[in-house]
Amino acid sequence: MRTINIIAAKRDGRELAAEDISRIILGYTTGEVTDYQMSAFLMAVFIRGMSLAETSAMTKAMVESGAVLDLSRITGTKVDKHSTGGVGDKTTLVVVPILANCGLKVPKMSGRGLGFTGGTLDKLESIPDFNTALTPEEIIEQVNNIGAAIAGQTHDIVPADKKIYALRDVTATVESIPLIAASIMSKKIACSSDVILLDVKVGSGAFVGDLPRARELSETMIAIGTNLDRRVGAVITDMNQPLGNAVGNSLEVIEAIDTLQGGGPSDFRELCVELSAVMLYMAEQLMSLNECRLAAKTSLESGKALEKFRQIIAAQRGDPDIASNTSLLPQAKYCREVMSEESGIVSEINCSRVGQAASILGAGRARKEDSIDHAAGIIVRKKIGDRVEKSEQLAILHTNNKSSISEAEKMLKSAYILSNAAAVPPLIYEKIY
Amino acid sequence: MRTINIIAAKRDGRELAAEDISRIILGYTTGEVTDYQMSAFLMAVFIRGMSLAETSAMTKAMVESGAVLDLSRITGTKVDKHSTGGVGDKTTLVVVPILANCGLKVPKMSGRGLGFTGGTLDKLESIPDFNTALTPEEIIEQVNNIGAAIAGQTHDIVPADKKIYALRDVTATVESIPLIAASIMSKKIACSSDVILLDVKVGSGAFVGDLPRARELSETMIAIGTNLDRRVGAVITDMNQPLGNAVGNSLEVIEAIDTLQGGGPSDFRELCVELSAVMLYMAEQLMSLNECRLAAKTSLESGKALEKFRQIIAAQRGDPDIASNTSLLPQAKYCREVMSEESGIVSEINCSRVGQAASILGAGRARKEDSIDHAAGIIVRKKIGDRVEKSEQLAILHTNNKSSISEAEKMLKSAYILSNAAAVPPLIYEKIY
Repeated sequence: MRTINIIAAKRDGRELAAEDISRIILGYTTGEVTDYQMSAFLMAVFIRGMSLAETSAMTKAMVESGAVLDLSRITGTKVDKHSTGGVGDKTTLVVVPILANCGLKVPKMSGRGLGFTGGTLDKLESIPDFNTALTPEEIIEQVNNIGAAIAGQTHDIVPADKKIYALRDVTATVESIPLIAASIMSKKIACSSDVILLDVKVGSGAFVGDLPRARELSETMIAIGTNLDRRVGAVITDMNQPLGNAVGNSLEVIEAIDTLQGGGPSDFRELCVELSAVMLYMAEQLMSLNECRLAAKTSLESGKALEKFRQIIAAQRGDPDIASNTSLLPQAKYCREVMSEESGIVSEINCSRVGQAASILGAGRARKEDSIDHAAGIIVRKKIGDRVEKSEQLAILHTNNKSSISEAEKMLKSAYILSNAAAVPPLIYEKIY
Repeated sequence: MRTINIIAAKRDGRELAAEDISRIILGYTTGEVTDYQMSAFLMAVFIRGMSLAETSAMTKAMVESGAVLDLSRITGTKVDKHSTGGVGDKTTLVVVPILANCGLKVPKMSGRGLGFTGGTLDKLESIPDFNTALTPEEIIEQVNNIGAAIAGQTHDIVPADKKIYALRDVTATVESIPLIAASIMSKKIACSSDVILLDVKVGSGAFVGDLPRARELSETMIAIGTNLDRRVGAVITDMNQPLGNAVGNSLEVIEAIDTLQGGGPSDFRELCVELSAVMLYMAEQLMSLNECRLAAKTSLESGKALEKFRQIIAAQRGDPDIASNTSLLPQAKYCREVMSEESGIVSEINCSRVGQAASILGAGRARKEDSIDHAAGIIVRKKIGDRVEKSEQLAILHTNNKSSISEAEKMLKSAYILSNAAAVPPLIYEKIY
């Protein structure tokens, strides 16, 4: 079909053939299909939806729009994890060492953050000299040697996604399950892992607000994986409050190291164990989920996961001593305790405001070009269900920009709601694998 | 609201406020809203629809995107007519002189044709030296002197429509009732007539295929008129076969003159009388519709409408002698009789194929820049319900391009379906005024 007929068919709610989806996606990548035609198509997809077959075809076409990372020279089962994003989500820093210590191969491609706080790469770059710009050769060699590497995505992977995402952002076509699923899965598929676990965040701080939509997104991505011969699972987890206590790049690295040392906040620790267990289970197929959970816990408690993290840092030219001495990480010049103005039980924490407060302090970037203050961020002291007295600490703000503190403090205070009682949200809603 | 929020609201099926519609339409006219944002918006409007209030607001914003033709110095009731377009539709050439002869003021702004056959301007330009490029001053003076002028639209009227139409054409957003209604009505409103009659064509040869949609389009346009203080009526008429017998520019002028001379095909003659009668009725409010019909008929039969047409031609520097001697109009060098290959009753004539055949002969243009062969076209000899014998004439082809004849003949033959019986479609389905 011609481009205009493909647009018209989707506009009228018809199911498109794989070759027509491929034509419009590849045509857009080469510039043959214009921005205005693509945006009409995306709006039609947003409103009319796409079947699983269409969404899989779109994912496949997006993968084919660029290069595929060939990791076939890595020996063993390659696993990958993707989080749909949330405030304080530093699970990659703990899960990758656990899995590598348990014998899996983890060539982890990560991104930078846009918005509230940094992405995994930004967090790792708070470690002095840590290098995230690895070539495919370097990734393969490092993973074969020590089991894991954490690097930035190369530019030639899924160019269609970059172009389509930029267009969705300015045409009100972001929050579409088929479009989100194809965007995430195309990048995962292009990175060639055997097993992919999706951490789908749900709640006020996630872009998916309710469980039915989170389930739909999870099932769509799992079905795409099945259609494209990958083993994909999903864990739907809570994002109605920050994960753990630390929000901000070096603060999150410190919390991850605390956890690898056997400490850390209990919610964060539990989620790292569960995600690792599910990935081990999916990859190995030999142990029960309980045995996998035990293996993950042992890996943490024995200090072996911490040792693996140290190896990863050393392999990527960072300072491995930070694994035992976190004071070597960037420290903020200014700290401010935020005190509660009343007593009560924390019944709600507006995640988005906590993220905005961290961003005001310097932890995030609004535009790609902006630089990040790696030391900036927040330590959350009270979480949902906690009792707070008047003038007791709610949180501690960290920053190198003194003038940002008042605004951040105001924003952070406005994130908390105290009541007589609270319903504590579960950490994990569902596991689909 | 910001542009992206306006797009999102329409995407979610919400009703937009007039000021938001105005913002996006005027923003697009100035270039502040991009093509890709407008096409996402248009697709959302196509799928979600617009309320009458929204469609009226869109029409108003489109009118305000450019200049308005100020015809306040024309004394008397100004009337206008618009046809949604069909094959062989030359009613303007007969209706305008009838109305002017009956005392109404007819400042008629017409267009050129894109597609099968020419528009009213192309038809009139087959009259040697006829000038359609009148200034507003010239239109006002001519209408005050002789009651009518037929001219091309000035460039500064409704620039938003030109830009939006071009975008709709390449983004599969043409066939939307609110968008069609706003496009037509904005141009009519900007031309400042008191009374507007819409001739909404329905059938295989019209872009509206069925009566319910034609009714919806009519009612939408009438409601827009009411909201913007104009008196608007609609007549829903048949386009399941060409109107009259002539298709092509000078052939249609000849048929119009035949009709003004008291002859002409009965369907075309009847439609001209009915359209004129409804417009007289709407404008005068004094006579009954039957009295208006009689006035229109008398105007035709007395030769006074023909005399008025001669005055219009003379005022616009054309050769007025063509009104009594149509052989002064361009004549094609080549004619070909198309004979029927079988006997039967004509049960269907595919209008679009008749139009394409005329276009192949040179009567239409595919692109704005293409030139037209004013003499080219078709005289249809058999219409739906007519008995045809084998080797009897179906039609006569006219052209100056001999090499086009075979292809046009084949196309024309394929337009006819003969059967044992035929249901003759009515000429007029409904009148709403």
